[in-house]
Amino acid sequence: MPATKTSKSTIRFVLFFMLVTASTLVAQNPDSVKLRQIYDFYLTKSKCYSNLDYLVNQIGGRLSGSPEAEKAVQWAKKAMYEAGADTVILQPCMVPHWVRGAKEKCVLSSTKLKLTKTLNCVALGSSVGTGVKGIKAKVIEVNSFEELEKLGEKEIKGKIVFYNVFFDQTKIRPGNAYGEAVKYRSKGASQAAKYGAVASLLRSMTSVADDEPHTGNMNYDTSISKTKIPSLAISYVAADVLHGSLAADKTLEIYVETHCMTFPDAASFNVVGQITGTEKPNEFILSGGHLDCWDNGKGAHDDGTGVVQSIELLAAFKQMGIRPKHSIRAVAFMNEENGLAGGTAYAKYAKDHNEKHLAALETDAGGYTPRAFGVDTLNGLYKMVVGWKDLFSPYLIDKIQKEGGGADISVLEKSGVPCIGFEPDTQRYFDIHHTAADTFDKVNKRELELGAGGIGALIYLLDKYYPY
Amino acid sequence: MPATKTSKSTIRFVLFFMLVTASTLVAQNPDSVKLRQIYDFYLTKSKCYSNLDYLVNQIGGRLSGSPEAEKAVQWAKKAMYEAGADTVILQPCMVPHWVRGAKEKCVLSSTKLKLTKTLNCVALGSSVGTGVKGIKAKVIEVNSFEELEKLGEKEIKGKIVFYNVFFDQTKIRPGNAYGEAVKYRSKGASQAAKYGAVASLLRSMTSVADDEPHTGNMNYDTSISKTKIPSLAISYVAADVLHGSLAADKTLEIYVETHCMTFPDAASFNVVGQITGTEKPNEFILSGGHLDCWDNGKGAHDDGTGVVQSIELLAAFKQMGIRPKHSIRAVAFMNEENGLAGGTAYAKYAKDHNEKHLAALETDAGGYTPRAFGVDTLNGLYKMVVGWKDLFSPYLIDKIQKEGGGADISVLEKSGVPCIGFEPDTQRYFDIHHTAADTFDKVNKRELELGAGGIGALIYLLDKYYPY
Repeated sequence: MPATKTSKSTIRFVLFFMLVTASTLVAQNPDSVKLRQIYDFYLTKSKCYSNLDYLVNQIGGRLSGSPEAEKAVQWAKKAMYEAGADTVILQPCMVPHWVRGAKEKCVLSSTKLKLTKTLNCVALGSSVGTGVKGIKAKVIEVNSFEELEKLGEKEIKGKIVFYNVFFDQTKIRPGNAYGEAVKYRSKGASQAAKYGAVASLLRSMTSVADDEPHTGNMNYDTSISKTKIPSLAISYVAADVLHGSLAADKTLEIYVETHCMTFPDAASFNVVGQITGTEKPNEFILSGGHLDCWDNGKGAHDDGTGVVQSIELLAAFKQMGIRPKHSIRAVAFMNEENGLAGGTAYAKYAKDHNEKHLAALETDAGGYTPRAFGVDTLNGLYKMVVGWKDLFSPYLIDKIQKEGGGADISVLEKSGVPCIGFEPDTQRYFDIHHTAADTFDKVNKRELELGAGGIGALIYLLDKYYPY
Repeated sequence: MPATKTSKSTIRFVLFFMLVTASTLVAQNPDSVKLRQIYDFYLTKSKCYSNLDYLVNQIGGRLSGSPEAEKAVQWAKKAMYEAGADTVILQPCMVPHWVRGAKEKCVLSSTKLKLTKTLNCVALGSSVGTGVKGIKAKVIEVNSFEELEKLGEKEIKGKIVFYNVFFDQTKIRPGNAYGEAVKYRSKGASQAAKYGAVASLLRSMTSVADDEPHTGNMNYDTSISKTKIPSLAISYVAADVLHGSLAADKTLEIYVETHCMTFPDAASFNVVGQITGTEKPNEFILSGGHLDCWDNGKGAHDDGTGVVQSIELLAAFKQMGIRPKHSIRAVAFMNEENGLAGGTAYAKYAKDHNEKHLAALETDAGGYTPRAFGVDTLNGLYKMVVGWKDLFSPYLIDKIQKEGGGADISVLEKSGVPCIGFEPDTQRYFDIHHTAADTFDKVNKRELELGAGGIGALIYLLDKYYPY
């Protein structure tokens, strides 16, 4: 669209776009006027996008314990002050220090098929390495833990287990498909080791049929097996190749080589920027994302966007001259990806300092166009937020759903803090999740700002209307 | 997200994604069961994506009158039969035949600044060409027609007018920003010619600050000026360069060279695939998109996606064994971009054949995640569709809005046919609209399929519940 040769079709086009948005003409109550001002700030003056550019392109991959993660801590502190924080707190936490080492290898070889083929792969986070000698073994393919169990030690011992598990594409939200499949990433190695496997391979956790391998954390569950075997993900396309090759030659072999190492826990920090409340400085409302990300990518959508959206909250209040009654915080949590040390440390700090948290919001589902908030029913929070539905409707936030939160704020939630999850449109999220393709160019400036605006507007209203 | 080292956070993550979607558990009435089946078809078996791949990558740019447009007609006929059409009708129409010719040039030169710089540009559709001699002239920058009028012939005569008009980024829907700015594309040349300008340049109609020039149709309005001057768009970045250079040197010159020609109207076709109704074969419900697209890109989102979504409607009915009571049509309209000859021909064909159209839907806002339907209130259509709101809510269609349609079906609408516009998330649409970057890789498979599923589900319900 649209034609403009005939004025007819020009008018038609403009009408289409304008009429369907007639609902934006909300009655001019003070809250709707303020929300319009807040969105204007985010869409024309915010630094979300340029901040993200710096974090992603100048610092890059920033796994807990890495030098990049520490650079990110220093950057976040500076960015929060620049945004207008009254104070920035560094909250210490000890984080796992896992290092990938040299690039992984995964090579399929079949004498019968006269085939030698390198498969795109990535070691899973927390996995042990194979060392320089690597591991070469036959492969046994399974679609489930049930199938693995049926095969048993007789079929599995000495082999590499290949979990060929797909996302259920009929799930409307890819996160639900991920939720079902991710146990093969987290527990697959221990389950395979239980039957004597020497390594485990996994079809990447993704919605899309491409050649990018997706990492993510795994953990060795000693209640299942005391043996730690190397664990890798191969790309969707590589998994297709392996599946097809196994159908033609069950005796083919895979060589894997990984150089992962786990060092002693390292010192790191959450970065907490604050605008101190004028009336109740010891009561807090926060928005947070996580500063760490996987090392194979640059952590743009996961979760650079959540960090910069949270930081921008400080800028919105400061630059618009909004003095909050309660203290407003932007939190860049450390170590969401492989330990949750930051979320734990934040909750402990809050407890130790007798901080009262009114609400905590997490943005960790990508910097895409907003769609919804998921809101805890605790303390009447949901009831209050759902009452603002019509205020948000012009801004693409069409649903206020019950229950929500995020990994980092889950520790706070346990102590009774009502939590909120920001939900953008997540169709593209798992295409790039935990891959080298999670880069700055995947983020759309307006989508990022509209999400940040929704968060800013919600926290403005929460501050205004507490106590409810 | 998400960590999985601690089972705590895994669970937290899964809960976040699952709880917020608890609303998907709609009571199992027959319609919700059928909608689930329809979406399952679209998400696992549809050919939307592979069809789009062919149309965009094997045929490519397909402006009305071009050999590619005729290839697209033949392809659409074949694709509709393959999808399961009972019959495919080619509806003749005469279309404008404008040809861009050799690549355009736009070169800025300033003696004062010691600067010679090529600016990325594209001739606007329907524009006359400069010919091989090109045009070199000084430039006068304006921000509005009002400013142009104030400057008058004295300041404008012999110069190139540069419309430096930005999108209003505070508009939540970029389509509204486009709707406000597009008059400078359509009427800018005639308005400039009125005061003696020799050519007109336009800041590209876009949400994004990049170096892609955006074409689109213009028209010479002889009620404004009888003189036809060449008209081009320059990229957002090029517009910045020109604006900045003009601030430093008002005497700089621009050389433009375009080779556009307009030939006599050419014969072409709408492609109309039909599954004939079992009860009321002469009553029709249609979904359409437009087959033509600009020649500088490949027309993926504009409007290859609308065409393949419409074709897939036939496949869904056929492969799921749904026999419609009324005749269901997929329409690939010709010439939406620069004339609307196809939409006009379709309405005339309907009248000449005494076809009764119950409803017409257009999908021409990109193949992005669905958000809404815009539905005419005519004949009670809106009232019926809004009653299905809860059926669509699990599938990301959160709004049923009043009024809607599209350019191609606007002629039908004038004759009293109630129309529907499919509204996806359009934040990214104007980033690539009418550019070389409107390519297959910009389309996400799931987003495309979810949109198609929404259209298929709506037309299933319309067929089932008519007459209302």
